[in-house]
Amino acid sequence: MNSAAAASKGAQTRDAIVLAGYELARRVGLDGLTIGSIAAAVGMSKSGLFAHFGAREELQLAVLAHAIDEVSNAAFRPAFTRKRGLTRLQAVINGWLDFVSTLDNGGCLILAAVSEFDDKPGPVRDQLVRYQRQLREQMERTVEMAVESGEMRAQTDPAQVAFELYGTFLVLHHDLRLFNDRGAVARTRMAADAILQRHLS
Amino acid sequence: MNSAAAASKGAQTRDAIVLAGYELARRVGLDGLTIGSIAAAVGMSKSGLFAHFGAREELQLAVLAHAIDEVSNAAFRPAFTRKRGLTRLQAVINGWLDFVSTLDNGGCLILAAVSEFDDKPGPVRDQLVRYQRQLREQMERTVEMAVESGEMRAQTDPAQVAFELYGTFLVLHHDLRLFNDRGAVARTRMAADAILQRHLS
Repeated sequence: MNSAAAASKGAQTRDAIVLAGYELARRVGLDGLTIGSIAAAVGMSKSGLFAHFGAREELQLAVLAHAIDEVSNAAFRPAFTRKRGLTRLQAVINGWLDFVSTLDNGGCLILAAVSEFDDKPGPVRDQLVRYQRQLREQMERTVEMAVESGEMRAQTDPAQVAFELYGTFLVLHHDLRLFNDRGAVARTRMAADAILQRHLS
Repeated sequence: MNSAAAASKGAQTRDAIVLAGYELARRVGLDGLTIGSIAAAVGMSKSGLFAHFGAREELQLAVLAHAIDEVSNAAFRPAFTRKRGLTRLQAVINGWLDFVSTLDNGGCLILAAVSEFDDKPGPVRDQLVRYQRQLREQMERTVEMAVESGEMRAQTDPAQVAFELYGTFLVLHHDLRLFNDRGAVARTRMAADAILQRHLS
């Protein structure tokens, strides 16, 4: 194997570890991840895994990054091809709603991590705060573009709209996961529509 | 000690154990509670504690009941003295908002337990579902009374309003705990006002 092939193989192994860690963390929580449990899941030795991730925390951060990519890919990536303004905002809402409502067993890793780490100072919490702020700011920016396009009112506060929309995703996740209530999807659409409606020009 | 005094002493000890368990669970989670850690917190032996709670799960259920009482006392108890209708609904919203925004370290035990137990079938999850449904139904009933009083529209769906209001409490808790953003309190008031506004007659 030449060095380029070896590097590529290394990256593939790293990706496989992160993916296994992500699936495991969705069941046991990010804080429940151990090097041993992931090594077992990917069929590696613990020392083999340590060659890729020097510490459990490094692995937790990589899994967190993957989880944020998943949300971001679902909610924002497809919407970026849509026209700036209300069309794109609607696409972000739909993407986010689809993401939450099609989560299978284990729910949203990010929301579980918020609950686990909101009172645990350290690098994982710091990174989680950064990621969650970025997601919120992307949503605010999307609202702002609908103000710039003239579709939403000039007085609209994008941070308020993003805050309210995020609340609807949280209660959707809560009711789907705890009550197993599929009716929450329609309620969320109605809630999001009402939030937008208040701000249309 | 006569038998009445002994029973009263037993109830006091039980209450002290539940309270210690509640404070501990707010830091380590309901799933992180152990008979040993609570015994240490109240200065009892593990066998002494087993005289009051036969199993860890029994203790978890008692701590959960206490946590729900805390929410219910804050959000609903004071509001019950207020006039049925919009006045009482506003009081419930204010009580709930005050409860979430004055939680000190550890956050809301119920929300942490939802995240821990939403995918763990068993008696704790079952009880959590029952409690969360009861809280939501109390909120729905409060909205319904504002419809009956004629202050809110006849077409108003109390379940939709309760769902939306719950979302605002969830994002308030999220932003206070993760972002340490006190501005979330004013955003939540604005969001709740907007939800009510849509339904006023």
